[in-house]
Amino acid sequence: MQRYKLTLAYDGTNYSGFQVQPNVPTIQGELEQALQRIAKGTFIRIHGAGRTDAGVHAAGQVCHFDFPFYISEEGMLRAINANTPSDIVPQKVERVSDTFHARYDACGKMYEYRLYTGKQADPFKRLYAYHHPHSLNVDRIKQALQHFKGEHDFTSFSAVNAEVDSRVREIYEACLIQEGTDYILRFSGSGFLYNMIRIMVGTLLDVSDGKLDPDAIPDILQAKERQAASRTASPVGLKMVEVYYKDKE
Amino acid sequence: MQRYKLTLAYDGTNYSGFQVQPNVPTIQGELEQALQRIAKGTFIRIHGAGRTDAGVHAAGQVCHFDFPFYISEEGMLRAINANTPSDIVPQKVERVSDTFHARYDACGKMYEYRLYTGKQADPFKRLYAYHHPHSLNVDRIKQALQHFKGEHDFTSFSAVNAEVDSRVREIYEACLIQEGTDYILRFSGSGFLYNMIRIMVGTLLDVSDGKLDPDAIPDILQAKERQAASRTASPVGLKMVEVYYKDKE
Repeated sequence: MQRYKLTLAYDGTNYSGFQVQPNVPTIQGELEQALQRIAKGTFIRIHGAGRTDAGVHAAGQVCHFDFPFYISEEGMLRAINANTPSDIVPQKVERVSDTFHARYDACGKMYEYRLYTGKQADPFKRLYAYHHPHSLNVDRIKQALQHFKGEHDFTSFSAVNAEVDSRVREIYEACLIQEGTDYILRFSGSGFLYNMIRIMVGTLLDVSDGKLDPDAIPDILQAKERQAASRTASPVGLKMVEVYYKDKE
Repeated sequence: MQRYKLTLAYDGTNYSGFQVQPNVPTIQGELEQALQRIAKGTFIRIHGAGRTDAGVHAAGQVCHFDFPFYISEEGMLRAINANTPSDIVPQKVERVSDTFHARYDACGKMYEYRLYTGKQADPFKRLYAYHHPHSLNVDRIKQALQHFKGEHDFTSFSAVNAEVDSRVREIYEACLIQEGTDYILRFSGSGFLYNMIRIMVGTLLDVSDGKLDPDAIPDILQAKERQAASRTASPVGLKMVEVYYKDKE
């Protein structure tokens, strides 16, 4: 058995998220079907660095899997590319040691949330960016973003049904970038709870719209209950950009 | 009856083209359903400036229709927006004279064909740009583009089954633009035959790949037969950008 690390990009529009589920198309399901064809019928389990929800995209999701016979890195990349649909595109394949684990070895992730404003929605952005009808108050958003940095208990910014031992996470970077007429909210951190970024974005939009004070964030964190934060923003703007591993830093 | 001019953008991915057809989703069909709801049940016929094929997009398609009761321009824009799916977005509504005709009064159109190169396809561009695996030879394409300008019989660049009286058209502008990692082939002209731009693009890609000489274009035009030109390029890269009317110039 040889362990492979796979970095991949996907458009999540047509999938019910990353994680395999019965009777619905998922990224993991498509990859496992592709690998089963490449392995001439043997089922190969894929382990992802993280799950992405329905409609969420990835530029650099990372997975690992064990494969029963020899294929070069380049050959595996071509084989996966040939066996996956056009909205799932392998970016890189590396042969790694048997001790590498895509999820347990990850020491951080970077996500971006893309949005744009204006009265009219843009039909060419609808799958990849969230349309917010009001102009952004950039200063208010930047002020609020500062409060997310560092180590906090993010219970208020986590889906109620998420089962985890600890809701403490560290955010390394939280910033707002302008790119043409789009805005990107970029978050990198040790890890993210279920729906955490989408709830942070929903809350930041309320800050921008004047419904919440930028300096209300510490109180919301302190409350440690989901109702203290704002609504969960749409998945369409969200993209998993990169997974960090120790050897890379 | 009041005649309205409607400028609209759409993502053609999920439609079998602009023109209404039974049992398949079309842009015209969606618009006519929207107007019928707005007109409280009265069927309203839409007249488009031009047809776009399945998968072809528009940033500035123009249509006209006659509406039985008074609605302001702004009110009609909002009503159409509220009654069309998110991939069809009205850009502008103008009340016009009864003599205005979206197709007959058009004196030209601009189309753009977007493509990108590289070994790997980009899952986020797949619906809006054509992926060409080889680098473009920009100089060869620019040299070939010169030959399309002016008035020519475009029979060689027209689908065989297209029934028209004359295949003579004038191309005002034909140029190659770089935008980030994308290339845009922009054509403006008096009008375009069925599949004409996609066949021109297929031929320009053969010129870029060295399969055809840039100065072979005049001979291909001269041949006046479809087989003289190259394959029809994929619809995904194509977008109707603007329709020109005399009063605007």
